[in-house]
Amino acid sequence: MGKRRQRRGTASREAFIQTTSQLLRRQGYAATGVNEIVAQSGAPRGSLYFHFPGGKEELAVAAISRAGEELTGAIEAILASGETLGSSLGRLIDALAAGLAASGYADGCPIATVTLEAASSSAAVRTAAADAFDAWLAALAARLVHAGLDRQAAARRATLVLAAIEGALILARARRTLEPLHAVREELLALPG
Amino acid sequence: MGKRRQRRGTASREAFIQTTSQLLRRQGYAATGVNEIVAQSGAPRGSLYFHFPGGKEELAVAAISRAGEELTGAIEAILASGETLGSSLGRLIDALAAGLAASGYADGCPIATVTLEAASSSAAVRTAAADAFDAWLAALAARLVHAGLDRQAAARRATLVLAAIEGALILARARRTLEPLHAVREELLALPG
Repeated sequence: MGKRRQRRGTASREAFIQTTSQLLRRQGYAATGVNEIVAQSGAPRGSLYFHFPGGKEELAVAAISRAGEELTGAIEAILASGETLGSSLGRLIDALAAGLAASGYADGCPIATVTLEAASSSAAVRTAAADAFDAWLAALAARLVHAGLDRQAAARRATLVLAAIEGALILARARRTLEPLHAVREELLALPG
Repeated sequence: MGKRRQRRGTASREAFIQTTSQLLRRQGYAATGVNEIVAQSGAPRGSLYFHFPGGKEELAVAAISRAGEELTGAIEAILASGETLGSSLGRLIDALAAGLAASGYADGCPIATVTLEAASSSAAVRTAAADAFDAWLAALAARLVHAGLDRQAAARRATLVLAAIEGALILARARRTLEPLHAVREELLALPG
């Protein structure tokens, strides 16, 4: 394979992952078909099964893993930017709220929809989602340890924070208001350390 | 229409709603087809569009409303059964955890999956989901007011509790463990009143 062809191959793979990621976030797993992924990606149809012989399930796993890594990086950067734990958590929730509002209440958690849809039917999807959640929990727990909590308390608190954010994103999408995120923000920031 | 035929009609309507409710909970909206609903309900195919001229969307709205009412009743009963706020919330989370485990991690929130899938594509589904969430929030807030919180603090705390439970149910399904529900339970019960 020449260098140029290889670059094109990498670009196609990337386009498939990005397109799948966005479709899973906005409409979920069952509603997303391989034909739609190919059409929106702009990549050649023939290269889809070359890059993803497992088809839609393998694409979903790659998209979930990618979303997991990207959001882990964003969470770590935002949490490191606040001088206090409260300002760090506040900025994280504000960033998610801003993204949700900017998308017309379409872009909540990138993986929650596909997790709920496929957790019972695809072990590969479920495992990829669990790995992403674990990475986000680890990033939150590390910030909480840095703020002085012991390891066990930090793990528990990280679970509360991530769960509350995930739930608030569901409520916010249903009610088309940021109020649930604001309420959860206020409650979480008021927690004793 | 004779009495007997009327009873049969009501039974069909009920069977469609119950079947839709279970399928939405376990696999979501996009994966659930009208044919599957008819087959699993055991009701005559011809009566589906008689009872639900709007087809799948109208069925989903009825199923979400039903799940909303049933869970509101269950939440109220459980919250009234505990002598303290802590024991009430603990029993609520324990009941949800028991249902999740008993179903092999299939039965989380009855409406979260369909909410995330259809919030951006069906105003009717989104509104039915928002109404259900509002009823659950009202039941939680009433118990918090009873425990002494003022109305505004109770509304905020109710949002945190419901959001944390919804999020913990996602994490628990992804990781096939009740640990996220236990962590959230411990954190919520430790909150100052």
